[in-house]
Amino acid sequence: MPQRRTRPTLKDLANRLGISESAASFALNGRPGVSEQTRKRVLALAEELQWSPHHAARTLSGITSMTVGFVLTRDVQQFGMETFYLRLLTGAQSVLSERGYGLLFQMTHSVDEELAVLRRWSEERRVEGVIISDLRRGDPRPAYLRDLGLPAVLAGGPDPRKLIPSVTVDDGAAIRLLVEHLRNAGHRRLAYVSGPAYLLHVHRRITAFRRAADGIMAEPGVIGTDYSDEQGRAATQRLLRAANPPDAVVFDNEVLAVSGVRTLNGAGLSVPADISVVSCEDSAICMALQPALTAVQRDPTVFGEAVARKLLRLVHNESEPVVEAQQPTIAIRESTRQR
Amino acid sequence: MPQRRTRPTLKDLANRLGISESAASFALNGRPGVSEQTRKRVLALAEELQWSPHHAARTLSGITSMTVGFVLTRDVQQFGMETFYLRLLTGAQSVLSERGYGLLFQMTHSVDEELAVLRRWSEERRVEGVIISDLRRGDPRPAYLRDLGLPAVLAGGPDPRKLIPSVTVDDGAAIRLLVEHLRNAGHRRLAYVSGPAYLLHVHRRITAFRRAADGIMAEPGVIGTDYSDEQGRAATQRLLRAANPPDAVVFDNEVLAVSGVRTLNGAGLSVPADISVVSCEDSAICMALQPALTAVQRDPTVFGEAVARKLLRLVHNESEPVVEAQQPTIAIRESTRQR
Repeated sequence: MPQRRTRPTLKDLANRLGISESAASFALNGRPGVSEQTRKRVLALAEELQWSPHHAARTLSGITSMTVGFVLTRDVQQFGMETFYLRLLTGAQSVLSERGYGLLFQMTHSVDEELAVLRRWSEERRVEGVIISDLRRGDPRPAYLRDLGLPAVLAGGPDPRKLIPSVTVDDGAAIRLLVEHLRNAGHRRLAYVSGPAYLLHVHRRITAFRRAADGIMAEPGVIGTDYSDEQGRAATQRLLRAANPPDAVVFDNEVLAVSGVRTLNGAGLSVPADISVVSCEDSAICMALQPALTAVQRDPTVFGEAVARKLLRLVHNESEPVVEAQQPTIAIRESTRQR
Repeated sequence: MPQRRTRPTLKDLANRLGISESAASFALNGRPGVSEQTRKRVLALAEELQWSPHHAARTLSGITSMTVGFVLTRDVQQFGMETFYLRLLTGAQSVLSERGYGLLFQMTHSVDEELAVLRRWSEERRVEGVIISDLRRGDPRPAYLRDLGLPAVLAGGPDPRKLIPSVTVDDGAAIRLLVEHLRNAGHRRLAYVSGPAYLLHVHRRITAFRRAADGIMAEPGVIGTDYSDEQGRAATQRLLRAANPPDAVVFDNEVLAVSGVRTLNGAGLSVPADISVVSCEDSAICMALQPALTAVQRDPTVFGEAVARKLLRLVHNESEPVVEAQQPTIAIRESTRQR
């Protein structure tokens, strides 16, 4: 490998102009203390020499690391199956890069490991703020982040103790829309194949489902899964063996919905002729399937953009409402039908 | 927000032990120049005080940024549809985090913008190395990275000019396996709905397809797309309108395959009874679909792990073969059938 090319230093700039390094620094960072004329001369020379601040030097000088972190605790194999987080990352990243910020991404296997990463990032001043997600019941992260003094935004939530701000989608409203749609279509025995109930948003969805489907819930009405294909299949089979099986099933995401439809078809049932199916997450796969799946619509890319914007405002001490809520809608497609 | 807690500095450590800061630094960084006894005392106190090196200070001192970058040029909306890159990121990240490395992720809209990001990361010493992917024909990045002196590994490839090392899957071999499987099943009119031919791996696949399917290719034999659902549908419709339509279609990824199967079904054709379908990328969706899709099997997570390991060896100047090739296999499922 060839050597890195040598870059001009702040000292080089100052020497060439016959001014002090601190004057050059003030000029480059837009701080008061130098004349407008000096500022212009410094900027012109910086442009000419293609000077760029050494990233680490900027961090040490107290300016910033120009980086935010996103840490996610997930089983690696399961994670790869849904597109939600990739799209969230993509959206967040597009806003951050416009402002010159990088996104440091890390996956961990447990919440404890996640806490250790957050502490390290904070202590090493590697990030100016973090995005967290998948809040759990009794989650230690909001209090921990508050203690670290590290700006953070929760993608999801909201945090029940209001310790950290969030951008959230109203999960209860999403479930109510789905149940209302199924009820209006004439369904009378609803079931819900959910994600793991230790996740706060899943817990909220289950509670909203039980309330909204009151009086028209099949038995079993709710079956939890770990979001895997296998548990989606097993849950669907259990629903089919019930004494009074459902006439419509809500699946917590598109992976569960795909495995559910396949299991229903395998048992000789046709969707939507015999049973309706809806998904709580939308994706290109929902649209491309046959039948196309009725699903809660929210664009994870737009959601990620909102999360990143909120975090940048927080990092820059701009005032903000604590909870920013997005209202879901549903896309009615071919997998549900009037009875 | 509360203040960040104050952290002990290297000077605090040195003062407490009555040694010089440089001696403390040598001890902490495992460099020669201090006695074993001093080293032990320094490490014990560092442990006790929960001392951690300031990340930026480590970078400035010439140690490392402990970060590698991954920059990807893709249309944001298209990107969100496939799980390949998320799984690659996940795999790379799992290897990096074991070694204490962070992964800085950035998406860009063009190769030019990507070059600017690579230059900035290099100049600011923000990363010790980078992962790039989606090599194009005549791609400027390998030479540019070589000039910057920034260690880099190509996920995919290999680079025809051998300027940068790569971990690659033999795309030609994958296509040959699929074509051989279809030929053995009795198919005599093959077509390929590909990605964009400016991507080098797509170009290689097309070339391999034309060669392997020699004598049993439908007309049109190859139709390029931008990987979108819409173009997948349009390409499939075009194949169906042909004078002598194909009896088997190879789709370049699972998103194209899903839209293809849906289009075939919409035209009254049954897969695999009337026409066989295979996908060049596998995913959970391929397994969950009905019929389950025959697909090239490679685990993008394992691929990402190999890429990260190769990059870390390169960063640490460990010798390495330039090209590391993984051999693909295919999973034969329900979407192909003996004629």
